[in-house]
Amino acid sequence: MITTTLNLRVRYAETDAMGFAYHGNYLVWFEMARVQMLDEIDCPYRELENAGYRLPVLEAGARYLRPAAFDDRLSVVAVMREKPGLRMRLDYQVFREGVRTADGFTRHAFINAEGKPVRPPARFVEKAGALFG
Amino acid sequence: MITTTLNLRVRYAETDAMGFAYHGNYLVWFEMARVQMLDEIDCPYRELENAGYRLPVLEAGARYLRPAAFDDRLSVVAVMREKPGLRMRLDYQVFREGVRTADGFTRHAFINAEGKPVRPPARFVEKAGALFG
Amino acid sequence: MITTTLNLRVRYAETDAMGFAYHGNYLVWFEMARVQMLDEIDCPYRELENAGYRLPVLEAGARYLRPAAFDDRLSVVAVMREKPGLRMRLDYQVFREGVRTADGFTRHAFINAEGKPVRPPARFVEKAGALFG
Amino acid sequence: MITTTLNLRVRYAETDAMGFAYHGNYLVWFEMARVQMLDEIDCPYRELENAGYRLPVLEAGARYLRPAAFDDRLSVVAVMREKPGLRMRLDYQVFREGVRTADGFTRHAFINAEGKPVRPPARFVEKAGALFG
Repeated sequence: MITTTLNLRVRYAETDAMGFAYHGNYLVWFEMARVQMLDEIDCPYRELENAGYRLPVLEAGARYLRPAAFDDRLSVVAVMREKPGLRMRLDYQVFREGVRTADGFTRHAFINAEGKPVRPPARFVEKAGALFG
Repeated sequence: MITTTLNLRVRYAETDAMGFAYHGNYLVWFEMARVQMLDEIDCPYRELENAGYRLPVLEAGARYLRPAAFDDRLSVVAVMREKPGLRMRLDYQVFREGVRTADGFTRHAFINAEGKPVRPPARFVEKAGALFG
Repeated sequence: MITTTLNLRVRYAETDAMGFAYHGNYLVWFEMARVQMLDEIDCPYRELENAGYRLPVLEAGARYLRPAAFDDRLSVVAVMREKPGLRMRLDYQVFREGVRTADGFTRHAFINAEGKPVRPPARFVEKAGALFG
Repeated sequence: MITTTLNLRVRYAETDAMGFAYHGNYLVWFEMARVQMLDEIDCPYRELENAGYRLPVLEAGARYLRPAAFDDRLSVVAVMREKPGLRMRLDYQVFREGVRTADGFTRHAFINAEGKPVRPPARFVEKAGALFG
């Protein structure tokens, strides 16, 4: 299992006329946590891209339990529960002061710069695999 | 069943560095189709808000089957399959030239301006209900 | 002079907690009008990109005169007053029911896919130039 | 003079198909620096809003000198050069590793919850004023 916690502060630009964070932004926050996880296993997404890989989202979902307001400090906990193969799944939980306000998931596959599905890069397989014993 | 088709053109601002529409934007497009559906059953969302109602997203999901590029003309078909009660569910399919490129769903509840769950407004119950025979 | 009028409807996602359209979105709307202008002079931006050109924003400005709310129908009038050379400037005015709510401008230069400034594509010079007599 | 430096990391969601940060996002980054400045003079924007004030953008401008890519670490320096009265102006400079990549400005006025222009809140006048000697 690989896990990371990203901290963020809700931007004014992220709110909508209901007075809370717009629901679409949670996918952006999930992505930020995902990027941080790749940093922490020493496979930064920027380097994956430079090496010709892309990691598009195949599927995403979110449940909104409590609204988040401008300036709220949120934590996004991202978890990779299963050793990634051709596909990769991450689960996310969003917290404010220890209370869960949302959760969600994303599923991904590696593709090359031409958009064709490819095996994950060797470095990623090695680094991520090492954390699944 | 209630259905509507929203046509849109992918904005440059909606693309990302992969060269395609950012996955988070699909939730925005679903919302546009939802707003159009409410127009078509003569319960515009703007009027619902003015009457003190809000219709937040409780849950959302999307599957991305084919990428969409800048300037692509897409159609978002929104469908309400079940007569709405305290909860409402919509399903969405995104098409480009007749080929499905994505699908998804959202679940909603009506709340009042203080954020408390409330029964759907009478006008909505009447208008939507009439379409479910 | 080249002019075009783009019509849009303010999306819920474009509002913020003040209850009106977020000020950053006006740059997106200006871009939509710009894209439509390029269509109308028969030099679609998509084709310019496919031919290896990019038209980044060098400078942008906006003045906000009146707020715009969710669902407002706005018109963005874009005007190219001067025959474009290495640089190109566009001015924009945003209207709601005939009343100006905002205005702004953008300045641009053509670059190639490597980011180097280049002369405008011949087709663009010909098509745009013809409209300046 | 009041000054603050906000650090940020370019999100993938903030890029566009040119491969760089979308120009509209700079207005969001300026806002983040503005919010931080208000924190630092002990007048958090959230508290201003709770007290019934709004600080909308009357005018904004940006010049884009060098593109910023996904994952770039940027610093946004915000400066208030003149003691604010009924109007307030801030200037911004964006840096990457000490090199300026963009600059801009915003102009603001305080309004109340009904949208009417009002004098700045006493606390803000006192706190900001104290820094202009």
